[in-house]
Amino acid sequence: MTSPTDSVSARVPGVCVIMAGGRGTRFWPLSRAALPKQLLPLATGASLLRDTYDRVAPLVGPDRILVITGAALADDVRRELPDLPAAHVIGEPVGRNTAPCAVLGAGLAGRLAPGEPVALLPADHLIPESEIFASELGAALDRAAGRETVVTLGIRPDRPETGYGYLLAGTEPDAGGFLPGEAFVEKPDRATAETYLAGGRHYWNGGIFVWNASWFAEQAAAHLPAVTDRMAPAVAAFGTDGFPAALEDAYADCPADSLDYAVMEKLAGFEVLPAGFGWSDLGSWDAWGDLAPELTGGNRGRAPLVAVDATGNVVRTDGKLVALVGVDDLVVVDTPDALLVCRKEDAQRIKAVIEHLEKDKRQDLL
Amino acid sequence: MTSPTDSVSARVPGVCVIMAGGRGTRFWPLSRAALPKQLLPLATGASLLRDTYDRVAPLVGPDRILVITGAALADDVRRELPDLPAAHVIGEPVGRNTAPCAVLGAGLAGRLAPGEPVALLPADHLIPESEIFASELGAALDRAAGRETVVTLGIRPDRPETGYGYLLAGTEPDAGGFLPGEAFVEKPDRATAETYLAGGRHYWNGGIFVWNASWFAEQAAAHLPAVTDRMAPAVAAFGTDGFPAALEDAYADCPADSLDYAVMEKLAGFEVLPAGFGWSDLGSWDAWGDLAPELTGGNRGRAPLVAVDATGNVVRTDGKLVALVGVDDLVVVDTPDALLVCRKEDAQRIKAVIEHLEKDKRQDLL
Repeated sequence: MTSPTDSVSARVPGVCVIMAGGRGTRFWPLSRAALPKQLLPLATGASLLRDTYDRVAPLVGPDRILVITGAALADDVRRELPDLPAAHVIGEPVGRNTAPCAVLGAGLAGRLAPGEPVALLPADHLIPESEIFASELGAALDRAAGRETVVTLGIRPDRPETGYGYLLAGTEPDAGGFLPGEAFVEKPDRATAETYLAGGRHYWNGGIFVWNASWFAEQAAAHLPAVTDRMAPAVAAFGTDGFPAALEDAYADCPADSLDYAVMEKLAGFEVLPAGFGWSDLGSWDAWGDLAPELTGGNRGRAPLVAVDATGNVVRTDGKLVALVGVDDLVVVDTPDALLVCRKEDAQRIKAVIEHLEKDKRQDLL
Repeated sequence: MTSPTDSVSARVPGVCVIMAGGRGTRFWPLSRAALPKQLLPLATGASLLRDTYDRVAPLVGPDRILVITGAALADDVRRELPDLPAAHVIGEPVGRNTAPCAVLGAGLAGRLAPGEPVALLPADHLIPESEIFASELGAALDRAAGRETVVTLGIRPDRPETGYGYLLAGTEPDAGGFLPGEAFVEKPDRATAETYLAGGRHYWNGGIFVWNASWFAEQAAAHLPAVTDRMAPAVAAFGTDGFPAALEDAYADCPADSLDYAVMEKLAGFEVLPAGFGWSDLGSWDAWGDLAPELTGGNRGRAPLVAVDATGNVVRTDGKLVALVGVDDLVVVDTPDALLVCRKEDAQRIKAVIEHLEKDKRQDLL
């Protein structure tokens, strides 16, 4: 199943499964169904997916990377990652939430490298400190190789965020710096988030999980038998001409479960490795703006800008000049066929724009 | 000097001089040095200049229309008005305010139609009720043909506007509906404008003046001898090969005076014909928005629009969709190479953007 060795050699055993589904409507009008968030160059000059790939390739090698995306995007992903073996890009025939994707990914990882640990990673997060990330992910893979565990990379909160799930951990790290995980905690209200931030025992759940392979198989079979049963024939067919048909069958009536709800929250135990790297899920234009380059007048983004009594704005264009006069705290994003002007605090309401466009049958803009 | 007769026949004697200079920076980014306000389709599908021409052509005929513009725009104006004789488009070598333009225009009018009255008209105002306008302008031309006078078309105020000059008039109209003019009044402060609006004797000065030709020549010679002396050789050369050089000479060191300040305010008397037509000087995007088509959600303009909790905005694009989320009372204007987002109440501050672009040597955007 492996391809010819690449110039990048693996440093640790393990397989990285990059989960690259999702529409990313929150980055409309730049993101579209055919060009979702993970394929956009939101952090560097490359796509978020490419950035993610580049962070893990030096660690495990291209032969040990799988990318699971939507079937319609599979060829775009292959073009984006030409050094990844084409067969390592899996197109889900239909989106079924994260659990089927994780089960499939872990199963295929077992075919690529039997018994090696498996990391599940989102494709669309921002992690600028690649070296720290690689070192910590490597430590987590080493850990999972040696014992029946799942290690979560916990992100230390710097604000009382209500949009993320949290991980509650013990306070006594072992010699490797790993903390005992105590609970997966759902998105809190503001007051609760404040106590999490003050208490120091809660971490953001960034969706980065590193599993011992056999233990993942055992837990998935116990908590998600309907999913594991359906995926088994597809996993068995990987590398054969029958794989596409088997994949179609597997997804046709597979339950759509969340890995967090269906598996993680039911585990008897897990471990937390507090992350030493900076992280953002880039959940909105507002979040993007916080990390984008500084522009004139206290504004941020990527565009030639003239600001007249205008500050705190986030702008992005394809090189077109933007002039802002007397406006504060807006998001302004221009594309060739659609323009967004939005209050920063309303950045999550872009979904309402998508709904309007769907109702108006503007498929050309979706 | 006249060209072959056009299919549109004149209804009254007289010459209309359309003053079409000016950069119109207040409509940036749509207006540019090479495409100023008067050449933009801001009211109908045609340019404001074309709209102005179309209002007067049925009244006096194309043979009795002159357009004075900047030299760099003369060919564009000829293309915009193909039924106007090419020689009737005069390109000023350099802008010298309104008095030289008026003196030149009145002089050339005398060459086209000796002794006939002369109307001076701005090219870039909005007057939707063409028939009422033509009827009232015709009445003013008739009036000026018969006596030594200048008739101003006074616009009845509907708000305490501080951005315009006013005309103070008597209250007793004669049989023709003409009022005795008492004074040209400079732009008032807000409190004064309120008293003008309440008193009913003040009209906005829309810059539409209809002169008895010989009386204009007499008044101009008396109050602006430096200008009339310089223009005389150019007027004499009109229709000959020597005209362009004579025009260059005339403007080379001509004083830059305002017709209002240098002549109108010094007249012993004038007349006011209260206008029965709707009027706007379209002085800003804000003013344009007041008259633009209604869009969804209490917004106005010309663009496909999705509005989510957004109202009172003015939008204009070249067909590009605009999505507004949570924003009120903005001006949003998109062009292929520049985008403006401005608070409506700051619409006059676009000039500061122009200054920035000049400083940055962005001639491509000016």
